[in-house]
Amino acid sequence: MTTKLKGNAVVGQSGGPTGVINQSLVGVIEEVCEQECIQDLLGAVHGVRGIVKEDFVDLKKLSRHDREDIARTPSAALGSTRDKPDEEYCGRIFEAFRKRNVRYFFYIGGNDSANTAHIVNMMAQQAGYELKVFHVPKTIDNDLLITDHCPGYGTAATFVAHALIGDDLDNRSLGGIKIDIVMGRDAGFLAASAMLAHRRDDDGPHLIYVPERPVTMEQFVDDVAAVYDKHHRCLAVVSEGIRDTTNSLWAKNILQHLEADDHGNVQLSGTGALADYLIMKLREKMPTARMRADTFGYLQRSFPGLISPTDAYEARYCGRMAVFYASGPYTSGSVCMQRFGKGDRYRVDTFITTLASVAAGTKSLPAEFINEAGNNIRPSFYDYVSPLVAPLPEVGYIEGRLTK
Amino acid sequence: MTTKLKGNAVVGQSGGPTGVINQSLVGVIEEVCEQECIQDLLGAVHGVRGIVKEDFVDLKKLSRHDREDIARTPSAALGSTRDKPDEEYCGRIFEAFRKRNVRYFFYIGGNDSANTAHIVNMMAQQAGYELKVFHVPKTIDNDLLITDHCPGYGTAATFVAHALIGDDLDNRSLGGIKIDIVMGRDAGFLAASAMLAHRRDDDGPHLIYVPERPVTMEQFVDDVAAVYDKHHRCLAVVSEGIRDTTNSLWAKNILQHLEADDHGNVQLSGTGALADYLIMKLREKMPTARMRADTFGYLQRSFPGLISPTDAYEARYCGRMAVFYASGPYTSGSVCMQRFGKGDRYRVDTFITTLASVAAGTKSLPAEFINEAGNNIRPSFYDYVSPLVAPLPEVGYIEGRLTK
Repeated sequence: MTTKLKGNAVVGQSGGPTGVINQSLVGVIEEVCEQECIQDLLGAVHGVRGIVKEDFVDLKKLSRHDREDIARTPSAALGSTRDKPDEEYCGRIFEAFRKRNVRYFFYIGGNDSANTAHIVNMMAQQAGYELKVFHVPKTIDNDLLITDHCPGYGTAATFVAHALIGDDLDNRSLGGIKIDIVMGRDAGFLAASAMLAHRRDDDGPHLIYVPERPVTMEQFVDDVAAVYDKHHRCLAVVSEGIRDTTNSLWAKNILQHLEADDHGNVQLSGTGALADYLIMKLREKMPTARMRADTFGYLQRSFPGLISPTDAYEARYCGRMAVFYASGPYTSGSVCMQRFGKGDRYRVDTFITTLASVAAGTKSLPAEFINEAGNNIRPSFYDYVSPLVAPLPEVGYIEGRLTK
Repeated sequence: MTTKLKGNAVVGQSGGPTGVINQSLVGVIEEVCEQECIQDLLGAVHGVRGIVKEDFVDLKKLSRHDREDIARTPSAALGSTRDKPDEEYCGRIFEAFRKRNVRYFFYIGGNDSANTAHIVNMMAQQAGYELKVFHVPKTIDNDLLITDHCPGYGTAATFVAHALIGDDLDNRSLGGIKIDIVMGRDAGFLAASAMLAHRRDDDGPHLIYVPERPVTMEQFVDDVAAVYDKHHRCLAVVSEGIRDTTNSLWAKNILQHLEADDHGNVQLSGTGALADYLIMKLREKMPTARMRADTFGYLQRSFPGLISPTDAYEARYCGRMAVFYASGPYTSGSVCMQRFGKGDRYRVDTFITTLASVAAGTKSLPAEFINEAGNNIRPSFYDYVSPLVAPLPEVGYIEGRLTK
């Protein structure tokens, strides 16, 4: 294969949106404009679906001004897709590439997107068709293998930290028990970021539960009751992927429970079911306490106006570097980040790993960050997460009650 | 009554927190420091509860720096309460005032707080005890009578508008139906503020339902289906106070329905029940469409970092003006805002109304702002709401698909 392969390129976005997925897209566009080996850059509308439907936009036509508008806009500007192509589908992608002399393919997404890229890449090799295939990482879950962290995570973590700072003030002001359900079906990174809101000894969140550490309902209820006894209030963060000790999702158990009660047609698999179920269980033990549960939902992934500058920068850099690597001797791969230094000295550089290694699975929150009781995040996680988020608001408190 | 009554003052905060309720508190503190007639300023911890328990802080001790930290912090820094004092309770408040020579009472809250202030004021008059009583308005619901609008609303509306801008981008990117449940049990002002996210013809929210306009489930489902047919997606905002055509809360009907099914112990009165129920009803008509519903919950009232500057300014101004009026010939009242000018020329001034007139009830979203079909907000609402919110993020779109 020649290293300066000439032809057109396709870029697509896939999976759940993030606050900075368009930064990666614009990074790809910028770098393509610098590299002479790539002629046209086609944006696939709604990811792989746009490729097989030949639904494209000409991204080189965008003005610099438009690019910047798009870069700072959350959610996938090209449209996204939940399609997970099998080999036959990947074959159709490959055929569409062949038809338009596409020699470069950049796919921005999670590990399923890396897998799509991997299969397309293998098909091209088998057919002897010269194609360079690169995956650009994206996920608010931060659960991709190999890379230190993922573009999209820092911005979602910024939202969650803000939400918990506000909710702790709210809980302080009125007392009672508050449960917040945070995204992350398999990985606890996003729920763990709630620890950023805990800045003074009695600050919430007082408890954080992640999918990596199964917990019984009894322990959960006892934990909340103990905090409530101590502080007359309790703020707890529960990952939507929380599991019982048989490693079964609580959310799934609740659904089965309700179906068993002939409520199969009441579809409680929505956002509120886990929250409502937890409140019900807590109320059995503490019938008079003021309680409320919120499920943050999609707000965590597309909220505008609270983008982490570091995350935005890194997302764009990963997009640029995918094209840069593609224009050199690399023929395929996934862009990864490595970090150097802590705190103010934090910085990243990129490297390339194989598509297969990222496609192979997902990463869990390392056990070292979870406390022994399995109900909170250790302070050491702060060093990992704090460089990735936007500056958090400082708040003020009134102290010093008068004696009677 | 002398106009320059000398004595101590008590200030308290009541009801659900807002992003700027501490601005009003700091406004009271600032102006008290300017008025010689008031000696000590006692902050009541958790509102009226702190008064009857004699749980106070000395607010004059706060440094200017602390004051500013507190002012920009969401949620009630003194602690809040849901206590709605009856006459006996108000009698205990009055006794606590008498004991500490309290001659000024400032209460920051909604119409229940105005009512508390009103009863305490009447008791003082009956006892011949000189006391000046002032209510400072606060509510994210924006439903106080007499005043043009309420401190707290602009910041909550800023959050809702941001959320809908992000959620529209999310919905655009993946398609399908998305329902967002917004706070406002009796008044649709907050749900209506979602219209700020609708800036281009096909932008969501495509539908907005408010408590002031009852709607049948059939109409709701048909409305969503019609938008979905047209745009292949639909973003709808539903006020938690949405009512059926018998004027009964949908949320309440759902609970009754489930209780009738022997699920009384499954307490679905939480945040998710209405959202899940709407999805269930929509799925009956559109079984294959991608659907999701989120309930924004407490995020709407205490989220830090997205405070409306206008709201913050006005909240502080209302706090200051309460003390200013109290130091003059007025003996009691509620601070109201009047607006002059539109757009860039928007400004407010304050005036005083009676405590009784604010205590008497709540304000509804005027019918002139609701469209004929009862499923959206008219563009004219923009002039009302836009001066109250923070600047909203501009977003970028990719347009111009290639022909095949």
